[in-house]
Amino acid sequence: MCKDWYKEKKVAITGGLGFLGSNLAHELVLLGADVTIVDPMLPLYGGNLFNLSGIENKVTVNYADIRDAGAMDVLVKDKDVIFHIGGQTSHVDSMSDPFLDVDINCRGNLVFLEACRKNNPDVKIVYAGTRGQYGVVNTTPVNEEARLRPTDIYGVNKNAGEKYHLIYCSAYGIQSTVLRISNTYGPRHQMKHGKYGIQNWMIRLALDDETISVYGDGAQLRDFNFVDDVSRAFLMAGASNAANGKVYNLGSGSPVSFRQMVKTVVELAGSGKIEFVEWPEERRIIETGDYVADFTRIKEDLGWKPQTGFEQGIEQTVAFYKRFRQHYW
Amino acid sequence: MCKDWYKEKKVAITGGLGFLGSNLAHELVLLGADVTIVDPMLPLYGGNLFNLSGIENKVTVNYADIRDAGAMDVLVKDKDVIFHIGGQTSHVDSMSDPFLDVDINCRGNLVFLEACRKNNPDVKIVYAGTRGQYGVVNTTPVNEEARLRPTDIYGVNKNAGEKYHLIYCSAYGIQSTVLRISNTYGPRHQMKHGKYGIQNWMIRLALDDETISVYGDGAQLRDFNFVDDVSRAFLMAGASNAANGKVYNLGSGSPVSFRQMVKTVVELAGSGKIEFVEWPEERRIIETGDYVADFTRIKEDLGWKPQTGFEQGIEQTVAFYKRFRQHYW
Repeated sequence: MCKDWYKEKKVAITGGLGFLGSNLAHELVLLGADVTIVDPMLPLYGGNLFNLSGIENKVTVNYADIRDAGAMDVLVKDKDVIFHIGGQTSHVDSMSDPFLDVDINCRGNLVFLEACRKNNPDVKIVYAGTRGQYGVVNTTPVNEEARLRPTDIYGVNKNAGEKYHLIYCSAYGIQSTVLRISNTYGPRHQMKHGKYGIQNWMIRLALDDETISVYGDGAQLRDFNFVDDVSRAFLMAGASNAANGKVYNLGSGSPVSFRQMVKTVVELAGSGKIEFVEWPEERRIIETGDYVADFTRIKEDLGWKPQTGFEQGIEQTVAFYKRFRQHYW
Repeated sequence: MCKDWYKEKKVAITGGLGFLGSNLAHELVLLGADVTIVDPMLPLYGGNLFNLSGIENKVTVNYADIRDAGAMDVLVKDKDVIFHIGGQTSHVDSMSDPFLDVDINCRGNLVFLEACRKNNPDVKIVYAGTRGQYGVVNTTPVNEEARLRPTDIYGVNKNAGEKYHLIYCSAYGIQSTVLRISNTYGPRHQMKHGKYGIQNWMIRLALDDETISVYGDGAQLRDFNFVDDVSRAFLMAGASNAANGKVYNLGSGSPVSFRQMVKTVVELAGSGKIEFVEWPEERRIIETGDYVADFTRIKEDLGWKPQTGFEQGIEQTVAFYKRFRQHYW
């Protein structure tokens, strides 16, 4: 898969010290790319220097926020591909502080795109969208043509970010691909709080032998992807001209109920307990119900499909955090 | 139509010195409402004190921008209904200065909604959406379930504004209705430039006996509404609980080609010439093609339909500007 394509390519990753960005950086270093990590290291976000452990001398790290126009103007120059992953990622925080979300996920995306338009209009961008853009869905599985009815400000603004990319593609020819990623878990995710990346947070609670609260009956379906599969989709999209101007869902093909996810985590961690509780108000008002992705389009266009089963992915994740706990707790 | 409903109701109108807002203010004064006009009088926007001519002593005018949190906190208090019309409205400007558009149409909307949530959660809001949210459409007529693929930053951000209202409705119970208005023309529109409200601009050019440029062959269909019909839709939505949390298209039922619109304007103005020219680049890259609205939903839910034919509306508009030219040129 596009193995040779990235060799000596100049690649930047916004949010590159975070979960998905750093996993992608590890892959890109293996493929021989010249990698620049861009990350603002915002408190409570996913940035963690340990995420680069093993490749710290093989990448360039530049601390900068996507809202920093001066920095973006310089950093986007001369890049072949930019994986644009940095953003505000908490559903709950987007409701308690909608202004921060709009500043990062709307204005910040425009700062980034304007920098590309002015300084590197030939760049290829892969933007991290989210299943949160769909919000409440009428039927599952959900394909890319489904109506977008987000239930929180985060979902609205990620959708705006996606549309900005498509417009900079149609109006200015900036090659952009959007991947609407589903719930993603795996190594190198922040483990300090459960404001986003809830499945990784469940793993922490289990490893700490804590009681894990499942809201309601936990029957709502989720579509979990292991981070390596998601990284591969980004690499494939970045290397493909056929993907320009396109939006793709990622998904697992095997949805799992929230309850089942937690049971599997407790079983494979070998610790932790489960309790069923009422939905907390701040979660209830933005809950979307079942989500199952139809990812036929990316399978057909780019040949992507997930390769890591849910139990296998959880096992690898548990093993990673057992080994490197001190860098994440 | 909801004639008694507005008597002594406390109503605010953002963008109330502009085109649609001021026409609505005239109607509301007739209906006996207690009207507060909120407008920032931004240069190049539609605000014009002459728009209140005849009702200037019957309304309260408060100069304030929706981005002004302190002013919004006070102004939304004790209102029964707020017609939220203020915003950045130029497609072209949203591309040349996307940051201003995001600041007004995203952040500004959140400032306004947060003010309502904190100070008047029982208020009813009618938000002015736009057919620009649809962008390029696959088939016409377009109903409210059609996919939203805006071609410019304005369309993206107006859509974000709509979704913010729907989320503040679903999450916090703030009663909101969205009207996606089509191309609207009529008295009290700014006549200084053609950055938005293109059909009114054509009327100015004709009255000045100028040459009107039609881009391409001018065959693209547009759906024009006379402003009185649009005002009536806002009044009906504001008075209806059935409209809460809903999105409605407005439309004419009789789409007109751009070329035909210009011909009618020249004929009824009795002056002006037409020339066909190439699309200018800044318009071409954001052009959407045909737009025809399906407004069945608002007809069924609220009983609204337009009452002013296109020629009749243009005649009234021409007569208005012939009489009051000095206040708009």
